[in-house]
Amino acid sequence: MHQERRSLVDLALEDIGQRLAAGTWPVGSRIPTEPELATLLGISRNTVREAIRVLLYAGLLEVRQGDGTYVKTMTSPADALRAISRASLREQLEVRAVLEESTARLAALRADPQGLARIEDALTLRGEQSQYAQAEDFIARDLDFHLAIADACGNAALAELYRYFSRIVQDSIQRSINDEALPDPDLASHQAIVMAIRNGDADAAGTAAAAVTRPLMQTLDSLLPASPLTSHPQPPGRNTA
Amino acid sequence: MHQERRSLVDLALEDIGQRLAAGTWPVGSRIPTEPELATLLGISRNTVREAIRVLLYAGLLEVRQGDGTYVKTMTSPADALRAISRASLREQLEVRAVLEESTARLAALRADPQGLARIEDALTLRGEQSQYAQAEDFIARDLDFHLAIADACGNAALAELYRYFSRIVQDSIQRSINDEALPDPDLASHQAIVMAIRNGDADAAGTAAAAVTRPLMQTLDSLLPASPLTSHPQPPGRNTA
Repeated sequence: MHQERRSLVDLALEDIGQRLAAGTWPVGSRIPTEPELATLLGISRNTVREAIRVLLYAGLLEVRQGDGTYVKTMTSPADALRAISRASLREQLEVRAVLEESTARLAALRADPQGLARIEDALTLRGEQSQYAQAEDFIARDLDFHLAIADACGNAALAELYRYFSRIVQDSIQRSINDEALPDPDLASHQAIVMAIRNGDADAAGTAAAAVTRPLMQTLDSLLPASPLTSHPQPPGRNTA
Repeated sequence: MHQERRSLVDLALEDIGQRLAAGTWPVGSRIPTEPELATLLGISRNTVREAIRVLLYAGLLEVRQGDGTYVKTMTSPADALRAISRASLREQLEVRAVLEESTARLAALRADPQGLARIEDALTLRGEQSQYAQAEDFIARDLDFHLAIADACGNAALAELYRYFSRIVQDSIQRSINDEALPDPDLASHQAIVMAIRNGDADAAGTAAAAVTRPLMQTLDSLLPASPLTSHPQPPGRNTA
């Protein structure tokens, strides 16, 4: 598909990206206008416009109405996104587990009464897998429960990161394996998370959240083609527990 | 800047995004060609092309050479990226702290001898802030040390996520406050992380990493305009330690 135009925009992105990284336009400064950039980079205005659109979408640039386009950050999320989407399901799941533990810990410290009520309601709605005819309905309710915890953690960036990873893991699971082969962490282990959050006990909440994710990771290890996270042999005497 | 064209592509992105979310084109399926999409959505081929380019860049679609454009995931990172870039510095820093703790824990379990050597070399190179004339040189060396730990954690997605957050936090710090006002977590507290990783002690590594980030968070609380992570009063009896 339209190979040639794409590679021109890619070159423009690379060129602009290098100038951002080199500090030609520091964070907080206004970049040149479209016609100026076209002259500077020796490319068409259309190509400049498309490259800028991509950088706006990626959050590196921002438009200030009636003023111009400014550098918001010099850090492209592209590398992180590529690494994340290329990562194995086990790696994605481990990131989700890390985020589940952190959001549970913080929710224990920060959940307000409304947040706690939403978490408790979500767990009641979730119930147990045996109550569901369709696995996907259960998975959706289970996700609602974990999202309620993430939203109570008092950190919007962390909550959105959890939201993103929980969905990308779900996409990967759908492509990789049969959902029904996954173990159903039981209701009691989920109730332990809620109890710890209600008690404001961050350590207990983190431990309870980790207890939910661990069996899933172990099952994946047996279901998935060998993709050990440890690519090197452990040095002798290293604790692998 | 070119407000009208941008909003047409935005509408196309929204429309295609809704169809992806609704499962019209499931993960792994081929989406219609550009002319087909233009007819279906009632928009020009140019607009379709630009929207597809953005979705390719964001990782939702992928081109298979000589075949077509396929759905890779239905999960847009756009919401997460927007939330992350809009988040307060304190929120971004807390995500970085969470990732620093997790990567240190995992590095203790998985670092191979080369990874451990890189971590130790990076700490030697870093030294202490008092040795540096320029704060930015010290900050770069300090980042190298934490990146060496992240790269030893055995999870490429987690390591790239840490890389992204450490840089975006740095961008925010540059815009928000004077770097030199930040405390310098001392060498000893960094050596404690390395010692725990060398001993393969995950809990100690996580605790040591958290000890490095905590003073920084506390200083930010005093330097930054009030932006408490807890927006609600704590219910009585809630543990806030």
